[in-house]
Amino acid sequence: MNYLVTGAAGFIGAAVASKLISEGNNVTTIDNLFTGYREHIPEGCTFIEGSAADDSVINKLAGIHFDAIIHIAGQSSGEVSFEDPVYDLQTNAQSTLLLLDMARKTGCKKFVYASTMSVYGDHIPPECDEGTELCPKSFYAVGKIASEHYMRIYAQSYGITCTALRLFNTYGVGQNMKNLKQGMASIYMAMAIKDRKIVVKGSKDRFRDFVYIDDVVDAFIKSLNRDEGYDCFNVCTGVATKVEDVVSKICTNLPYDVDVEYVLGTPGDQFGIYGNNQKIFNSLGWKPAFSFDKGIEMMTKWAMENC
Amino acid sequence: MNYLVTGAAGFIGAAVASKLISEGNNVTTIDNLFTGYREHIPEGCTFIEGSAADDSVINKLAGIHFDAIIHIAGQSSGEVSFEDPVYDLQTNAQSTLLLLDMARKTGCKKFVYASTMSVYGDHIPPECDEGTELCPKSFYAVGKIASEHYMRIYAQSYGITCTALRLFNTYGVGQNMKNLKQGMASIYMAMAIKDRKIVVKGSKDRFRDFVYIDDVVDAFIKSLNRDEGYDCFNVCTGVATKVEDVVSKICTNLPYDVDVEYVLGTPGDQFGIYGNNQKIFNSLGWKPAFSFDKGIEMMTKWAMENC
Repeated sequence: MNYLVTGAAGFIGAAVASKLISEGNNVTTIDNLFTGYREHIPEGCTFIEGSAADDSVINKLAGIHFDAIIHIAGQSSGEVSFEDPVYDLQTNAQSTLLLLDMARKTGCKKFVYASTMSVYGDHIPPECDEGTELCPKSFYAVGKIASEHYMRIYAQSYGITCTALRLFNTYGVGQNMKNLKQGMASIYMAMAIKDRKIVVKGSKDRFRDFVYIDDVVDAFIKSLNRDEGYDCFNVCTGVATKVEDVVSKICTNLPYDVDVEYVLGTPGDQFGIYGNNQKIFNSLGWKPAFSFDKGIEMMTKWAMENC
Repeated sequence: MNYLVTGAAGFIGAAVASKLISEGNNVTTIDNLFTGYREHIPEGCTFIEGSAADDSVINKLAGIHFDAIIHIAGQSSGEVSFEDPVYDLQTNAQSTLLLLDMARKTGCKKFVYASTMSVYGDHIPPECDEGTELCPKSFYAVGKIASEHYMRIYAQSYGITCTALRLFNTYGVGQNMKNLKQGMASIYMAMAIKDRKIVVKGSKDRFRDFVYIDDVVDAFIKSLNRDEGYDCFNVCTGVATKVEDVVSKICTNLPYDVDVEYVLGTPGDQFGIYGNNQKIFNSLGWKPAFSFDKGIEMMTKWAMENC
């Protein structure tokens, strides 16, 4: 099969592209290398450098038929979205419109999108299923919601099967250990290894639902089996892990002592939600294979050699 | 007071700007004249030609302090949004981001926005209040939803009082009688007067909640009294009027016979909803003063002399 995976120089995009290539598929990627790295693009992947929000870049793919488009590229930090909300809108929503339009024009019938748990904002009670009201706290999340709506309209109006995966906190081997604005586990782990000190922005009582990268890749692969309409799914474990537990699990896996300091939070940060994953289990047979303990252990080992 | 009213070359923008000027305020407008007309801009209004989605245009206002920004400019047809979804996103969402950013930087503390009943999509039962789930059917409506979220975030993060008015079908004296893709009452009326034949795209059983332009202006004026946080309000009458009744009321007011033909509908068109207006009454003391019968009578008289 022939796939377009946007953002394969980034953590999740590289992992999805790599998996598809390992299964014998052709994979092309678009990446602007703003936060990704050329050397992370998996071997065998055709690379087009540029933004998926730029129609002159998308037009380079005009003659190619893809069996599916998996759109993962995009500014991916709620915090950073406050620095340039317009760039965020373009990279996270305009890009989706351009790719959906390309899908329509080239007869591509499947579209899978990396959405986010940030679409929910904060909720009481904190367990969110796909019917929970959307109350985004960051510009980043607003662009993701717009993209979800666009997919629903394209599915209804043009018969493209569209799937939005609302990824909860994705972490694991391969995560960018240099970007200190993206990825709670990787940020803390990078600080712990490099500085032997973790500075936490915000309360230790905040919590997240951490899902391991291999499980996220599996959700993307399983979404390719859908063949009708639009739907969105939480990709999560259903387990809430507190910030202080993330910190202590990282420390436990390291062979030296680490200082921990708590400072003021960042704009648009959520206090805490976790996901209900019944829908994706019922519809796609997906469930997480990795516990947080196991995932952090694997990631820490890898990070100590790669950070 | 000093106001920025975007889109004052258009139907609603011109009416709001005119009212503010008549009350002794200074009004500046930005309009790209894509669907508006220079001659519709009220006398006394300072005019800057250009798009509110273009930062070089917004930058022309950098040194000015406005007491409030009323953002009405934007592509305003669900049907047209299918022709160029990216343009729609820029004009309806990117523009809001740029104007909110300008408000923040210049210390402007009030922002009022022309949102739309299209954010709801179709619902059963068809009465929508502000808590009804948002299920937009057009790209146009998706951009409006993004703008509403942006305002909520700006209100929470930067203390700007933001108000979204979800306008239902606005009609009345001054409406653009040349644009046959925008405004159900004006489209039918223009056809009836020019061709003595109304071609209806879609079912006669569809229905809308029609609100008269003077009432809509009154809602904008009353929103300027809000002074804290974000909120959104339906601007509607609470009365559902069927397409066939719109057609027959127009015909009744004309001194000649008019043919009526029903053809296929347009993409993204809603079947029918109407609004609950309790919230805007309770919060702002707004209620509609014009019945549909009265409004159509006034508009038909005007249109026969101006079409």
